[in-house]
Amino acid sequence: MDSGPGTTPTKPTIAITMGDPGGIGPEVVVKALGSPGVRGRATYRIFGSADALHEAAQEAGIDPFWWRIEQGSDLIETCRVHDVLLLDYGGRFQSGLGPTRAGGEASFRYVTDAIAAAALPPGDARSVGAIVTAPISKRAWSLAGKGRYPGHTDLLASRLGAKRWAMMFDSPVLRVVLATAHVALMDVRNVLTIGRIFDAIDLGHEACRRLGVPRPRIAVCGLNPHASEEGLLGDEEERLIAPAIDLARNAGLDASGPHPADTVFAKARRAPGSKFDMVVAMYHDQGLIPVKLLAWESAVNVTLGLPVIRTSPDHGTAFDIAGQNRADARSMTAAIELVARMAQPVGSALV
Amino acid sequence: MDSGPGTTPTKPTIAITMGDPGGIGPEVVVKALGSPGVRGRATYRIFGSADALHEAAQEAGIDPFWWRIEQGSDLIETCRVHDVLLLDYGGRFQSGLGPTRAGGEASFRYVTDAIAAAALPPGDARSVGAIVTAPISKRAWSLAGKGRYPGHTDLLASRLGAKRWAMMFDSPVLRVVLATAHVALMDVRNVLTIGRIFDAIDLGHEACRRLGVPRPRIAVCGLNPHASEEGLLGDEEERLIAPAIDLARNAGLDASGPHPADTVFAKARRAPGSKFDMVVAMYHDQGLIPVKLLAWESAVNVTLGLPVIRTSPDHGTAFDIAGQNRADARSMTAAIELVARMAQPVGSALV
Repeated sequence: MDSGPGTTPTKPTIAITMGDPGGIGPEVVVKALGSPGVRGRATYRIFGSADALHEAAQEAGIDPFWWRIEQGSDLIETCRVHDVLLLDYGGRFQSGLGPTRAGGEASFRYVTDAIAAAALPPGDARSVGAIVTAPISKRAWSLAGKGRYPGHTDLLASRLGAKRWAMMFDSPVLRVVLATAHVALMDVRNVLTIGRIFDAIDLGHEACRRLGVPRPRIAVCGLNPHASEEGLLGDEEERLIAPAIDLARNAGLDASGPHPADTVFAKARRAPGSKFDMVVAMYHDQGLIPVKLLAWESAVNVTLGLPVIRTSPDHGTAFDIAGQNRADARSMTAAIELVARMAQPVGSALV
Repeated sequence: MDSGPGTTPTKPTIAITMGDPGGIGPEVVVKALGSPGVRGRATYRIFGSADALHEAAQEAGIDPFWWRIEQGSDLIETCRVHDVLLLDYGGRFQSGLGPTRAGGEASFRYVTDAIAAAALPPGDARSVGAIVTAPISKRAWSLAGKGRYPGHTDLLASRLGAKRWAMMFDSPVLRVVLATAHVALMDVRNVLTIGRIFDAIDLGHEACRRLGVPRPRIAVCGLNPHASEEGLLGDEEERLIAPAIDLARNAGLDASGPHPADTVFAKARRAPGSKFDMVVAMYHDQGLIPVKLLAWESAVNVTLGLPVIRTSPDHGTAFDIAGQNRADARSMTAAIELVARMAQPVGSALV
């Protein structure tokens, strides 16, 4: 639908947290927003260090495109007209040192403040409608005394009071939701429940619809080799996974399984004759091995179930190549574009 | 080295077990050996049902190329001149019925008799030097009262008295060895040991050399997400996997890790700049998800550590398409060709 004369389509305001300033975060933020096409999708608030951003821009040969104010400044009210506003937390950081306490403290503040901004009412000048997070180092968070959060997602879910949430990985070739994520593999038995599997199916279904799939076909993986071969190898399929699928089907969702994990991803690969729009994986590597193999640089991590949309690139801090202008910003660009797309009302995606 | 005048290079004698006669086993055997090029690689003994083989050949439009004798017959002494000898166990089987007791009993006999033939001294007319197994149904074995063997590999290892063994998957794009295989995922904790991981590395190293890689670079996966992120998520990396890698390195092997499983397979994919010749995976799906995604129809399952070489195609009985002439024999062909290649003395492969 075209906007009528005199009306301006409302662009979402997206918070971008710079991640660990000693990693490749500043570089991929600068490179992604360096594209005017990406900048045109939304208005942006970068939570980070002006110094780190400047350095990355200089290395990449990108002219500054942001308006800097100090974080917490009242100037935000008058500066909101700028397309890209940098909320500067100061600090000088050296690239490539690996995890540091200073990097952990800084990246933790960027994220917690972005979360606080997301919790503000929409009318507030400081509020944001969505969050894109550049990679942090869990080790650095641990050094900074924030080790109780295994990562961004758990922090977001806890601070935003999400009752249920799940990690999704979206890419042009494959879409995967995880029923469990950052947990030791042998502890999956302690966290995998019928409810958690159902939530992953249900949240995944909703996300697919937001992304323009009217009736998503969802494949649910088994946990065991060959999905247990009818109970010969483990009982989680019968005890947990099949009941969750039944719940979803009773709620009208097109969910099937448990499917053997070693063959299901090929059937969900986006191609003519593809059988599924999304796969629900039971644990981290089951879902991430195929995502990284098929969609190395293009996958986006989306947190489902939060009151705000949150995405992040599907890579880490990459301390080893930080500060060398060698980072690939495709995943960060995709993360920004996806959040801009999902921030539209559902109706517009569904046509 | 050319054979001198008057000498004939010795061809290996390969047992091919037909697998479940109600599955696609007879069809892929007939199609693979239907190629004169494949038949020229070795002499063959098919353990199976003449009736099932005839039917599959007729469906596929392939003229019989085998010489039939009854299993157990003394005629084997005079018939060993034939390139392909069918040892007929009789029986009539209907395709597409799914797992049956009769199918389980028959396929179990084919395999146990092939194993017995492999254990005979090389001079014996009935002896074989290698085994290729078409797929069996574990459910059918269970119906036939043979449920205590989770599959071919365990049966072979037990009957041939192998002290250590491991499953390898070989394909033109990726080579993977499993440290554990047909075990419920949450029971991996009970079977994964330093010794088992070391054996997988060591047996994999030896197999790579047999396949012509003089100094194999072997990547070992972590068990936990991100290989535990330095102990934040699980301790098996520190407790079991790193010590096994140390043992291997002390023995002069080029082993590295533990690597995060979600990124390591891309580095081992055979391509220019590939970093590894083989990946050791800790459990079934960790290794099989990438194998099936990257090498769908071309992967071969090789059992390492047995006194005879044994391969099998990387697919199941596929009861749903059995008897319809729709099965793809590429994996069976690759399994036969690989066993013929590995049955040569190591020196010839190493150049």
